[in-house]
Amino acid sequence: MQRYFIDAHQCSSDAIRIEGSDAHHITRVLRMQLGAQVICCDGKGTDLLAEVKAVEGDAVLLRVHKRMTSRGEPAIAVTVAQALPKGDKWEWVLQKGTELGAVSFLPVLTTRTVVKLEAKKADKKRERWQKIVKEAAEQSHRGRIPVVEPVIRWSPLLDLFPTYDRVLFAYEKGGQPLRHVLEESRCERMLIVVGPEGGFTAEEAEQAQAAGAVAITLGSRILRAETAPLALLSCLMYAHGEMGGEPL
Amino acid sequence: MQRYFIDAHQCSSDAIRIEGSDAHHITRVLRMQLGAQVICCDGKGTDLLAEVKAVEGDAVLLRVHKRMTSRGEPAIAVTVAQALPKGDKWEWVLQKGTELGAVSFLPVLTTRTVVKLEAKKADKKRERWQKIVKEAAEQSHRGRIPVVEPVIRWSPLLDLFPTYDRVLFAYEKGGQPLRHVLEESRCERMLIVVGPEGGFTAEEAEQAQAAGAVAITLGSRILRAETAPLALLSCLMYAHGEMGGEPL
Repeated sequence: MQRYFIDAHQCSSDAIRIEGSDAHHITRVLRMQLGAQVICCDGKGTDLLAEVKAVEGDAVLLRVHKRMTSRGEPAIAVTVAQALPKGDKWEWVLQKGTELGAVSFLPVLTTRTVVKLEAKKADKKRERWQKIVKEAAEQSHRGRIPVVEPVIRWSPLLDLFPTYDRVLFAYEKGGQPLRHVLEESRCERMLIVVGPEGGFTAEEAEQAQAAGAVAITLGSRILRAETAPLALLSCLMYAHGEMGGEPL
Repeated sequence: MQRYFIDAHQCSSDAIRIEGSDAHHITRVLRMQLGAQVICCDGKGTDLLAEVKAVEGDAVLLRVHKRMTSRGEPAIAVTVAQALPKGDKWEWVLQKGTELGAVSFLPVLTTRTVVKLEAKKADKKRERWQKIVKEAAEQSHRGRIPVVEPVIRWSPLLDLFPTYDRVLFAYEKGGQPLRHVLEESRCERMLIVVGPEGGFTAEEAEQAQAAGAVAITLGSRILRAETAPLALLSCLMYAHGEMGGEPL
């Protein structure tokens, strides 16, 4: 069934009002009729099963029939921080990272980041990235829309480490095996830090570990910049029972 | 260090002869000098550390200094069978599936496969797909080049199930949690079967299970056609100690 995210102000009592591009999607793209059912997710973990009651100009009015807990949110909150890779790889990571359950994304500038991002373009890029994440959240039946944070530099990123229960630093040059690290303890709020195509410098690795991150390796095969965060996220989710199965 | 796959006929005693596109890559793209070192992998699990000794016309001659076991091959042999998805998604799966350690790929035609593949184009497609896999195998430091099999129909695919220790059938409509299935037993030769964008039909699900497959689910989020096999492969490899860690 089609899903849309709505804000609190769009819903009062049992009435929902959808406007803008989602309304256009309902009336013009999907051409839904009166009586058609959709799921409106409040972005905070509640799904509302609703029926199209009327179309008023550019707005669609719906009536809520049932409230349910969103099933698409993992128990562990994982943030994906990655040194901005080239081309459209970051958009891939945003989309698939959302499907896999990440709660937020931190694009980072590191020593070996190749991508240059001008300040005035940064806002537009972030808007686009947030849109990609919203669409992926809808299609994958997430209960909330992940947040794409503004681009952050290396040093401020290090300052954020203490706000997480655990920080994993993907470092093929000298990490512990992932499985050992994940089986030690459970946690609720995790940050994973992945490098650009050229990898992290030895200095960055030292700084990350000094700031509290655990360096981990993903095995003996080299993964591309856009593959690594998705593989790591899949394994994390699996270890925490989120890819089918009970938690540790 | 740069890696190239070589065939047995290219190597005699301590001498290696590289021709064709790899030779071009050495001399014109990377512009390697005499004395430069490369790793030549025999595709059967042995890496040969070799030094460029001479350039003869379009061929590069190297001398082997050391033989080592390839570290890039997983202990479990996983084949990825997927109903051909649209656009370039299959090429993505081939590339990232190779990085993640799959040993072969089976493109399948199912009831809901949208892609049409004409017979005369099929060979050319397969050549292209094999090339993508070879490049990904080199870049990810695999010890062998995965094989891309010819496109197969549903019924012949079912006939192959008994040749595997275990067959996992990705079916969000009624599978067991993945973790339960993976923790039951270890195996050496596994087949994973993933559907097209429209999913499998109920009939295909019954047929797959009747033929010996175990239906599994990857959790409560819907994964796209190109995400599912990569997530599943990552979790499989993780469970078998291949993503950093000891085996079960």
